[in-house]
Amino acid sequence: MIARQVFSLATRGRGSYPITDRIDSVVQEAGIGTGICHVFLQHTSASLMLCENADPDVRDDLERFMSRHVPDGDPLFVHVDEGPDDMSAHVRTVLTHSDLTLPVRDARLALGTWQGVYLWEHRHAGQRRRVMITVIGE
Amino acid sequence: MIARQVFSLATRGRGSYPITDRIDSVVQEAGIGTGICHVFLQHTSASLMLCENADPDVRDDLERFMSRHVPDGDPLFVHVDEGPDDMSAHVRTVLTHSDLTLPVRDARLALGTWQGVYLWEHRHAGQRRRVMITVIGE
Amino acid sequence: MIARQVFSLATRGRGSYPITDRIDSVVQEAGIGTGICHVFLQHTSASLMLCENADPDVRDDLERFMSRHVPDGDPLFVHVDEGPDDMSAHVRTVLTHSDLTLPVRDARLALGTWQGVYLWEHRHAGQRRRVMITVIGE
Repeated sequence: MIARQVFSLATRGRGSYPITDRIDSVVQEAGIGTGICHVFLQHTSASLMLCENADPDVRDDLERFMSRHVPDGDPLFVHVDEGPDDMSAHVRTVLTHSDLTLPVRDARLALGTWQGVYLWEHRHAGQRRRVMITVIGE
Repeated sequence: MIARQVFSLATRGRGSYPITDRIDSVVQEAGIGTGICHVFLQHTSASLMLCENADPDVRDDLERFMSRHVPDGDPLFVHVDEGPDDMSAHVRTVLTHSDLTLPVRDARLALGTWQGVYLWEHRHAGQRRRVMITVIGE
Repeated sequence: MIARQVFSLATRGRGSYPITDRIDSVVQEAGIGTGICHVFLQHTSASLMLCENADPDVRDDLERFMSRHVPDGDPLFVHVDEGPDDMSAHVRTVLTHSDLTLPVRDARLALGTWQGVYLWEHRHAGQRRRVMITVIGE
């Protein structure tokens, strides 16, 4: 069996947005007991992230780490058509994930206790992001 | 066809632990000739890694690289409840992988000659880690 | 339904090589309307990358970023049997991706408008690289 749904999310600029519940709803509707759930982001300046879900400081620390590691406006970058966060957003995306595959058990996402799924927006301006979900199993 | 198994591994603290053989055993037992094997770690402070499997220096070099790149006790970090390796472990996890999908051929993992799968523990203290395996194919 | 194909690519040394069309051909031949396409690289010194596909400067900037982030000949590295780009190639691989899973819709890859798939060679000398494709769906 296979099920497919697409949803979109309007971000309010750089930062991480919880999407675990939306993905889990798709899994529940799919009615697939055991299998996998593939999550795919159709963009090159935002990421999918599995991250600690209890303390918001974790995601703030990640944001600070990434801002230091891949600075906006790095003089190394030639591709700056859309401003100082254009190329840094592409680098952040390549260094993280555009696709995640998660286990499904009893028709629910089978994450660990402390795992949450987040859409990580890397552009400073808000964007509309499309997430494509595919559930496969039986 | 689909098969599911979970195993746990008790780590002895930071470092990488070979798990190729355990995953390959699950694949063999599944009796699925052609397909994919999804490996998932239900934790946010350890990773899955595909790495060179012949020279242990490679994994030592990776550990040194990561320790320099994501230093324990970085003054940037606010989330330090569990000590100086708490937040660095989360960052290491986000920068690497919690899920891997591997090809299955002739009811075995179809890795390259030099590829091995490792569980990469990022905490200094030993932890019990759960690995969920799903084999899909026919 | 499941379909499997392997192709090889002869690289001309460090840099990224577009492989979207080759993967999409495999998907079309598979005749699977809705599902996923798993792409796997059987090597530990080259990566798969989803990246912006319109401006070649993006991939040049990524290459420069990576060369600064993971320098060849880093004195930290012990594993240098094959020269100064031996260990840096392994680190680049671990920090990026050996496997990608992409959605399939209407028997085609369902990528975003600006997404392309690239094989990212990390060694300076040309290499022959094997890519294993598995399409699963119905």
